[in-house]
Amino acid sequence: MSLLVVGSVAFDAIETPFGKTDKIVGGAASYIALASSYFTQNVNLVAVVGDDFPNDFIAHLNVHGVNTDGLQVKKGEKSFFWSGKYHTDMNSRDTITTELNVLGDFDPIIPDAYQNCDYLMLGNLTPKVQQTVIERLTKRPKLIVMDTMNFWMEIAMDDLRKTISMVDVLTINDEEARQLSGEYSLVKAAAKIQEMGPKYLIIKKGENGALLFHGKQIFFAPALPLEEVFDPTGAGDTFAGGFIGYLAKTNDISFDNMKNAIIYGSAMASFCVERFGTERIVNLNNDELKNRISEFKHLVKFDL
Amino acid sequence: MSLLVVGSVAFDAIETPFGKTDKIVGGAASYIALASSYFTQNVNLVAVVGDDFPNDFIAHLNVHGVNTDGLQVKKGEKSFFWSGKYHTDMNSRDTITTELNVLGDFDPIIPDAYQNCDYLMLGNLTPKVQQTVIERLTKRPKLIVMDTMNFWMEIAMDDLRKTISMVDVLTINDEEARQLSGEYSLVKAAAKIQEMGPKYLIIKKGENGALLFHGKQIFFAPALPLEEVFDPTGAGDTFAGGFIGYLAKTNDISFDNMKNAIIYGSAMASFCVERFGTERIVNLNNDELKNRISEFKHLVKFDL
Repeated sequence: MSLLVVGSVAFDAIETPFGKTDKIVGGAASYIALASSYFTQNVNLVAVVGDDFPNDFIAHLNVHGVNTDGLQVKKGEKSFFWSGKYHTDMNSRDTITTELNVLGDFDPIIPDAYQNCDYLMLGNLTPKVQQTVIERLTKRPKLIVMDTMNFWMEIAMDDLRKTISMVDVLTINDEEARQLSGEYSLVKAAAKIQEMGPKYLIIKKGENGALLFHGKQIFFAPALPLEEVFDPTGAGDTFAGGFIGYLAKTNDISFDNMKNAIIYGSAMASFCVERFGTERIVNLNNDELKNRISEFKHLVKFDL
Repeated sequence: MSLLVVGSVAFDAIETPFGKTDKIVGGAASYIALASSYFTQNVNLVAVVGDDFPNDFIAHLNVHGVNTDGLQVKKGEKSFFWSGKYHTDMNSRDTITTELNVLGDFDPIIPDAYQNCDYLMLGNLTPKVQQTVIERLTKRPKLIVMDTMNFWMEIAMDDLRKTISMVDVLTINDEEARQLSGEYSLVKAAAKIQEMGPKYLIIKKGENGALLFHGKQIFFAPALPLEEVFDPTGAGDTFAGGFIGYLAKTNDISFDNMKNAIIYGSAMASFCVERFGTERIVNLNNDELKNRISEFKHLVKFDL
């Protein structure tokens, strides 16, 4: 089924305890589009870059089957740029630079050929822009998944609450779930957030896995214990890309199939953190993915 | 099969965001003995208390089938006492008081009737005392499980390393695994700790579950997401009690059966945190335990 991906396509410069990069390609939608492309060849991208953005990455997205007709390239302008430095625990980081550039006045134009999409993945962006995307679709998608972050809770809570009320699945991390709900217990937080609109909530806990909530039902997916987490940048987006890609492929949005989708998302994320940026997820093969899924199965299987 | 439990039997005074207690019964061995008694009626306790310790708790252990012939009661002396206050996140706490009292010169005497035990659970204690227990057993148990904490890594690392080298299974939390191994990655930490002696390592991550390592094999058990964690005191000991109790009951120390034992341990711990101290685990019934195991199964089950 067709999948519309909206989010940032950008540059990052990353420092981790293992090394540092110059400007490399990043952005939520880059990770989401790449990750989802392993599941469906019907991925349509809406994003904006400046004319400093490398054509070869766009070509690479196309090779992956990602339609980039909706990727606006702004002449004489610069792409969004973020740089940050991770602490030793890799769970926290300091932002060094944020240059909005083309993202400052991003107007998400949906090409006609993108209309009637079945699945919509809203990567982290200004909530107002995410909302505009939903409003510009002539037919509501079968499933709308939205990612966001604490930054918007601090500066645009009203917009954020409005956008959240329009989606089916919200993905946030544990601290964000606490901040959004005002509840420390994740079970209580999940109940409150579901009252805000989304029938499904995914709480991402980094190296501690992810929880899917739907009414009173809870599913837990572990993260794969890794020898080395090299660079966590984009792991949450890659997770979201694997999740929505698998749902679009199977076209089954039952709670049981969402469990499978979360395992695929977790598997994709486990690759992402093994190298800087998108390096590890640009060229995965089927056997690698199959073996990783098998590792997840063994990790939690018991016979009671 | 017979299980020998050694550890503290003591008083705690606990403050959490939900309330505070006066002196109540606590101590690693209290939790371990109670939790294991749901699986085997052949539990033998070695510990020491003062004559201030309530007879009715000892009687209660006996009702649970726990043999307390090895519980030394020191006339005119006082039981070990700890008081602490938990922070809002319940993952960290401040110690307010530690009074060693009878634990200061604890000499673990093993009654003759306790010899030839099949399973040995060494609750958190001075590593030297744990070592003495192993040396005083005329026959090495089939399985020795040891719990310890960061405190001993700071003041008695040599003794601790020696004791660790003598056991089969070590249970510690994630921060302790990092401190003991000097490795941040838990996978690397587990490899280093296994080189110190134990063929099995359990890393407890509180509300983030537990990992079992054995060579290259890894098993992950989630913690049950709870509406409220009322008091985490004793959760790790209760986990250990459920783990070793299930192994003693089934008398199967294969990696696969250890997975089941960890699920039972996690289920017991999930009860423990629902009330202050031992309150919730003194009177569990079979249906409650059965239902909780079923919740764990549903929590991680997926069909890929």
